[in-house]
Amino acid sequence: MVDPVLPSSGALSPIGLDSVRLGPGFWGDRVARNFQATIPHCQEWMEREGWIGNFRGRSPRRGREFSDSEIYKLLEAMAWSGHPALPGLAATVAGAQEGDGYLNTRWSGQRYSDLAWGHELYCYGHLIQAGVARLRAYGEDELTRAARLAADHVCRRFMDTAEVCGHPVVEMALVELYRATGAERYLEMARRFVERRGLPALPGAADPAYFQDDVPVRQAQVLRGHAVRALYLAASAVDVAVETGDADLLKAVETQWERTVARRTHLTGGMGSRHADEAFGEDFELPPDRAYAETCAGVASVMLCHRLLLATGDPRYADLAERTMYNVLAAGTAPDGRSFFYSNPLQVRVPPEPRQGVNPGVAGGTRSAWFEVACCPNNIARTLASLGAYLAAADGDGLRVHHYATGEIGHDGLVLRIETGYPWSGAVTARVVEGRTARIALRVPAWAGGAALTYRGETRPAGPGYAVAEADWRPGEEIRLDLPVRPRWTLPDRRVDALRGCAAVERGPLVYCAESAGDGPPLDLAEAVLSAPAEREADGVVELEVPARLAPPADTAWPYAESHPAARPAEDATLRLIPYHLRATRGPAAMRVWLPIAAPDGTDDTTGTAPAERR
Amino acid sequence: MVDPVLPSSGALSPIGLDSVRLGPGFWGDRVARNFQATIPHCQEWMEREGWIGNFRGRSPRRGREFSDSEIYKLLEAMAWSGHPALPGLAATVAGAQEGDGYLNTRWSGQRYSDLAWGHELYCYGHLIQAGVARLRAYGEDELTRAARLAADHVCRRFMDTAEVCGHPVVEMALVELYRATGAERYLEMARRFVERRGLPALPGAADPAYFQDDVPVRQAQVLRGHAVRALYLAASAVDVAVETGDADLLKAVETQWERTVARRTHLTGGMGSRHADEAFGEDFELPPDRAYAETCAGVASVMLCHRLLLATGDPRYADLAERTMYNVLAAGTAPDGRSFFYSNPLQVRVPPEPRQGVNPGVAGGTRSAWFEVACCPNNIARTLASLGAYLAAADGDGLRVHHYATGEIGHDGLVLRIETGYPWSGAVTARVVEGRTARIALRVPAWAGGAALTYRGETRPAGPGYAVAEADWRPGEEIRLDLPVRPRWTLPDRRVDALRGCAAVERGPLVYCAESAGDGPPLDLAEAVLSAPAEREADGVVELEVPARLAPPADTAWPYAESHPAARPAEDATLRLIPYHLRATRGPAAMRVWLPIAAPDGTDDTTGTAPAERR
Repeated sequence: MVDPVLPSSGALSPIGLDSVRLGPGFWGDRVARNFQATIPHCQEWMEREGWIGNFRGRSPRRGREFSDSEIYKLLEAMAWSGHPALPGLAATVAGAQEGDGYLNTRWSGQRYSDLAWGHELYCYGHLIQAGVARLRAYGEDELTRAARLAADHVCRRFMDTAEVCGHPVVEMALVELYRATGAERYLEMARRFVERRGLPALPGAADPAYFQDDVPVRQAQVLRGHAVRALYLAASAVDVAVETGDADLLKAVETQWERTVARRTHLTGGMGSRHADEAFGEDFELPPDRAYAETCAGVASVMLCHRLLLATGDPRYADLAERTMYNVLAAGTAPDGRSFFYSNPLQVRVPPEPRQGVNPGVAGGTRSAWFEVACCPNNIARTLASLGAYLAAADGDGLRVHHYATGEIGHDGLVLRIETGYPWSGAVTARVVEGRTARIALRVPAWAGGAALTYRGETRPAGPGYAVAEADWRPGEEIRLDLPVRPRWTLPDRRVDALRGCAAVERGPLVYCAESAGDGPPLDLAEAVLSAPAEREADGVVELEVPARLAPPADTAWPYAESHPAARPAEDATLRLIPYHLRATRGPAAMRVWLPIAAPDGTDDTTGTAPAERR
Repeated sequence: MVDPVLPSSGALSPIGLDSVRLGPGFWGDRVARNFQATIPHCQEWMEREGWIGNFRGRSPRRGREFSDSEIYKLLEAMAWSGHPALPGLAATVAGAQEGDGYLNTRWSGQRYSDLAWGHELYCYGHLIQAGVARLRAYGEDELTRAARLAADHVCRRFMDTAEVCGHPVVEMALVELYRATGAERYLEMARRFVERRGLPALPGAADPAYFQDDVPVRQAQVLRGHAVRALYLAASAVDVAVETGDADLLKAVETQWERTVARRTHLTGGMGSRHADEAFGEDFELPPDRAYAETCAGVASVMLCHRLLLATGDPRYADLAERTMYNVLAAGTAPDGRSFFYSNPLQVRVPPEPRQGVNPGVAGGTRSAWFEVACCPNNIARTLASLGAYLAAADGDGLRVHHYATGEIGHDGLVLRIETGYPWSGAVTARVVEGRTARIALRVPAWAGGAALTYRGETRPAGPGYAVAEADWRPGEEIRLDLPVRPRWTLPDRRVDALRGCAAVERGPLVYCAESAGDGPPLDLAEAVLSAPAEREADGVVELEVPARLAPPADTAWPYAESHPAARPAEDATLRLIPYHLRATRGPAAMRVWLPIAAPDGTDDTTGTAPAERR
């Protein structure tokens, strides 16, 4: 089966990329553009930057110490999508491999001299993932041989040491290679890497939590430190837990996920609150302006959610995956598939200067064509290339559809034709193309109170979780799910200090944002009124309008005072909201997801009291 | 005259450290402890860490590339305070100087190969400042000769290039050496360094704003980038402007200061909003939890304020200096003078683990005995050693007292004995010890509405600015200033997103904070009620109590929702507030300066509306 994650046990089974065919629509369009634009764009840039040339022995070597991994991520994207550039690129890579399987353009000659920061095992992880993709989508070739040689080298070199890599990923790659080949040494190596961490395995690290090396994986309470590292390690632990039948380890990751989602995740699904260390913050430390919410952390969170969904069958994991797919992954790429966000903040105070060429920074104000650290474009490429694998899963001989996109899904004699305008509309129709007796479950997201399922002439309410239709399905029959896609106001938990006094608008799975526009009110001075937003459709996109008050405070010499005078009388205004994933597609702009809310009585400050009462 | 800043013109003139004698009290105690504890503490640590040994040719060299500068900062502290360890340490330093004046234990042999990051000129700056201090407090010796040799080397090497150092400070040191020696080449070198910046002078820098190299100093609108760099450069520009009579340059810095204070400064006077790059943020980006507010940025801000005060005579600069002295400088050091904060956040969410020994991080939860980057302890040492210079200044033949501390201040035949319990009490008495006809001006801080001045039997109101008493003063006469030191609630400008819905308590010049304590309510769940705080004196410290509501939200699986249920009915509670500078002196604790305010009507969320109204 062609699929990035093929566990040997678990509540749900993947049905394979090859069982899903996407038609035009939100995701089908993006997957097509990924193939046509993003994959060649990444290859061109890595050729131009010399990172591919490094494999040809280019001197001096160019790019960061982990640049090899970017080529491997792109090879994985090419493998899933059957891209014709793969064989040539794979031959270049394989040509640089040493006789014993070692392969790294940066550290050859200084092997494993800096495990904390060198990324050698991280690079192997992505090579192995590319190899697994090629093996499943095509069969043995030069790339799969290189991946196995590298994996065998890793097992020989690290099986009996206490070492790990500073950046997890090789763990989940090794589990997948075990699943693809049956060779148990790969699973055992992955298991050891996961269990070593936190003993500690990277002695001398200034901040072990950055590397998740502060406590063993099975004792940790929450995800912490560098967000992508933390998420890849958690995903690896799920893979190891599933293959070794380690229920305690699986439960530990579920507990960590729960607290991370309840206290350390942005409304968009974005993870990572700090630019410093690209790290998770403390519980409820979720600043919108300095949210890091790296695109790759979104990719990693979707990978973790998918593994937990397959292992447990709990649709809450698909809920977070959906939120992250629409508001981090889709936001991370420009509509043309050729520029990208590295960080995905929920507020941009000052419209940024447009940048040309390589963006050395990650500020999140405008998308960049390329980055010195180019994990995000390549990670998006491999994720979109395998997106079909995330849409549905098998439940015994039943089928669960988790994400809605126009296209066809087949499994074991059952073929469904999905038609939907989701996420813009909430109507999803599944028409039976080939039928049999089956339990068909359609996911109802947690936000969708009041959903309804209709089939065989009957409509019934469908609460969050799954709406289930069981029957002996005949071709032509239809199941229709109606999700209440309409704008809703969302408030933060009071402990999220950075969002106090604000609210956001969501519609279906989409988070909305206000963007500064020529004629709109200044975003830092407007306060939204919590009434029902108006909808307006333009070019297939639903935009929203909310009433606002414009009551700017006067500029003062010192911004802290007993009371703050108004600069002028309050005026009525209108804030136009666009889907967050479309932000910054009309040029540099200020932006807010979380809108300050106008005090109901129009008091001058946020406390609702007059200064005299406070003495 | 013995003084760190001796401009040749300006609205006010320094009266010299040697004209001020501090008695027991807030600052007198700290200055004494600085001499007895902090200066030897710093020397011991730098000996132990090998940084002093570097000057003896220690191999391998130890410490960061700028560690030489820490020894120079300490030498400056020793010079101002006449510390007996100076000659020995100065001899060690001078012994490493090369024949042409070059002196650096890191870069000798690779001179000026990395001007952006190497800190060679930065190190000279601190050496020269130490030399000026020694020259003024003692006279010529080995240290002053080393400083002049270095300055002459700098002038020869850099006068006709376009180069600058990545970290300003040599500029103001050169101006002061010009003031101390009359040699104009030092002023001209400083002027060129200031004018070169922003042309740009550090080509290839990824982020020129970090180095203040994005626009020329005289065109910049606000302080930006690395906070200490920005403040040192601004102080240097004032020095150059004053000595060259460049009114435009002075005005440019005043304008930058105004916007920085109005929009980029924390309530404590702390500057720097970002851990990443130790940098200023955008306007109104002032997060309490991730406030960086480096202790050294506080030192630098006091230096800038003092220069602007002398140049213009505007007491607003003394207001900010006072705020920063009490809430950043005093907070930066533990009561025993032997541990320090590097960053000074206004909120600590989670009580930190206590740390032993060298703190590689800067998190601001507990004070550390030492740091890998040890600018802060040494900078505090040199500032406290010269603190007397900041207390008063001459205005023609009059005297302006800017900061209140028990002690004696003399100037030109006028000697005042100051008695005060400030900042705990607002009563300041100036008794004339030696008299003459003079205008005595006592600063009235901006917060002190309702102050009163009493002398010769008459009491009159004294508005913010200066309270002026002019007379032919005879020994034994008294002037009494009464400042209304009582607790007051302070609200943030509505544009400070991170503080929405919060208020802070100040009392006199002191910012207060709530600290988690054994029996107190959890800081993240309590909401303060804006009523008059109660005072309670304990061991000479005024603590405060404010009523609060404890209405914890229920834990939920996702922290964003249409409404948030309460975990249990609201309870009344009391928040105990302590002066911010005494935080973390009773062990690790959570802490908040900005307290969430209870909604007046007890509504469940911060919007004051019920969910049904929002649809």
